[in-house]
Amino acid sequence: MGFRIAVVGSGAIGSYYGAKLAHAGSDVRFLIRGDLSAVRRDGIFVRGEGENFRVAKINCYNSTKEIGPCDLVIVAVKATSNCDLVDLVPPLLNERTMLLTLQNGLGNDEFLANHFGAERILGGLCFIALNRASRTEIERYAYGHIILGEFSRAAQPRTHEVAAEFNRAGVRCTVVDDLALECWRKLIWNIPFNGLSVLAGGMDTAAIVGDNDLRKAALALMEEVIAAANKCGHALPSDAWHKHIERSEKMGGYKPSTLQDWEAGRPLEIEPIWGEPSRRAIAAGGQMPRTEMIYALLKQLDKARRSR
Amino acid sequence: MGFRIAVVGSGAIGSYYGAKLAHAGSDVRFLIRGDLSAVRRDGIFVRGEGENFRVAKINCYNSTKEIGPCDLVIVAVKATSNCDLVDLVPPLLNERTMLLTLQNGLGNDEFLANHFGAERILGGLCFIALNRASRTEIERYAYGHIILGEFSRAAQPRTHEVAAEFNRAGVRCTVVDDLALECWRKLIWNIPFNGLSVLAGGMDTAAIVGDNDLRKAALALMEEVIAAANKCGHALPSDAWHKHIERSEKMGGYKPSTLQDWEAGRPLEIEPIWGEPSRRAIAAGGQMPRTEMIYALLKQLDKARRSR
Repeated sequence: MGFRIAVVGSGAIGSYYGAKLAHAGSDVRFLIRGDLSAVRRDGIFVRGEGENFRVAKINCYNSTKEIGPCDLVIVAVKATSNCDLVDLVPPLLNERTMLLTLQNGLGNDEFLANHFGAERILGGLCFIALNRASRTEIERYAYGHIILGEFSRAAQPRTHEVAAEFNRAGVRCTVVDDLALECWRKLIWNIPFNGLSVLAGGMDTAAIVGDNDLRKAALALMEEVIAAANKCGHALPSDAWHKHIERSEKMGGYKPSTLQDWEAGRPLEIEPIWGEPSRRAIAAGGQMPRTEMIYALLKQLDKARRSR
Repeated sequence: MGFRIAVVGSGAIGSYYGAKLAHAGSDVRFLIRGDLSAVRRDGIFVRGEGENFRVAKINCYNSTKEIGPCDLVIVAVKATSNCDLVDLVPPLLNERTMLLTLQNGLGNDEFLANHFGAERILGGLCFIALNRASRTEIERYAYGHIILGEFSRAAQPRTHEVAAEFNRAGVRCTVVDDLALECWRKLIWNIPFNGLSVLAGGMDTAAIVGDNDLRKAALALMEEVIAAANKCGHALPSDAWHKHIERSEKMGGYKPSTLQDWEAGRPLEIEPIWGEPSRRAIAAGGQMPRTEMIYALLKQLDKARRSR
């Protein structure tokens, strides 16, 4: 059908999914703030189980004004840079432009809805283990699929069109009617593993699952997330953690994105993963004691490092 | 009355209280494992508000066999070295020797009771902010008093005699009938501040109290400790945290002992401060979610560092 697609945010997620779509022939335009030369020269390499390709010619731009209006804008900046979107997004919009956030945690879709209108917003949950080896090289360790939904409403015809675009590019993409529920479901994994991996001094998923006390802490956090989701009106079954711990056991030693950010000296996505969920739970009359503590500690670690 | 006193453990606590007693003329014999020469040459200096003295002649020994039987053994080793006591203590015992643990947290008195008989054991809670600047120099920043009690029974005449010995030496020492209750009361402070100070990347008490989120985490931990104490049958009033947060506000920037241990590369006293309390709460049908998480994280940080 020929979407014109903009990718805003060229970290691991934006680069990988953008490259997949471009490799399949979609019209993809990357916003790359900073130095374009490496991507212009080398394109983007993708390596992973069952895939190994290079997109030699990447359409990349320094500003969204040069990109101009698109049908679909993939938002893949770190949530810590969301405020930049207020200026970056408008040149990409026509009346029907869809904004698809592929970001972690809660609150990103609301942010976009508040600024650009709720009816534009879709959210995609990425179940993928990536590592950006360099600006032009993306390594995929596991998975890859996206769960796609509309912000605050059931799936629409366009939701299926976007999903078809991804599926055509070899990215498995499933449409759901209740995006918020799936966001909470994903947090069952992110809240414990992203947090404990940093606070325990740099542990990967295998090490966390393999340590008795940390595994217990992870399970307790999972139960806490499930209880909070239910308190907020998102009906997750009480054994929903089971699949997640199984997945982690099979995953091997993967470094969650927050640990990758921490080790690379990048700011941490603390608000969407720990701040917003615990605030919502408290507003609904619940509590997330472990999550709140992770929030306070990570916030302090992040702040202290940036003030150095 | 002339107690013969042995001090086992020559960290900040053992050195300070031992020096105070020796300075007042008590017969104090220090076990110093490792190099005796600095203490033999320089004695022990104590500096603090209203006190500034040197005990020139320290009776120090390399082995408890040389010390021989005493009336009172002050146990001030790190709880992580408790297993060493099994061999160190017996040469110090006659039929009536009292063992006084000045250690942090829960379980130390039980450990001594199991090995040497419950009727010997007393416990002292030290409310003091110390820094051991070197093997021979102790700096006292705040407080100094001891709350003294018998293990598993009300105060005895001998309890008051020991308290009198401390008071004579200028150490305020109060006798209580319910030592276990006071141990839990002290944990209201130690569980949050000792733990958060390390996990937040090296923050002193003033910084914790001054940070909104960490202060909230500290308060939530205090409430958790009070609830656990009550679950375990130790009746702490629900507003018992109030005095503690006030005290911390007045305290200025003090590094809790666990942070001092962490920065000096010493093993952390994890079991008595976080492990044992949470196990007891769970055994009593309660839970300490935040404390358990601190436990798992500190244990991992400590283990990882020691395996490097």
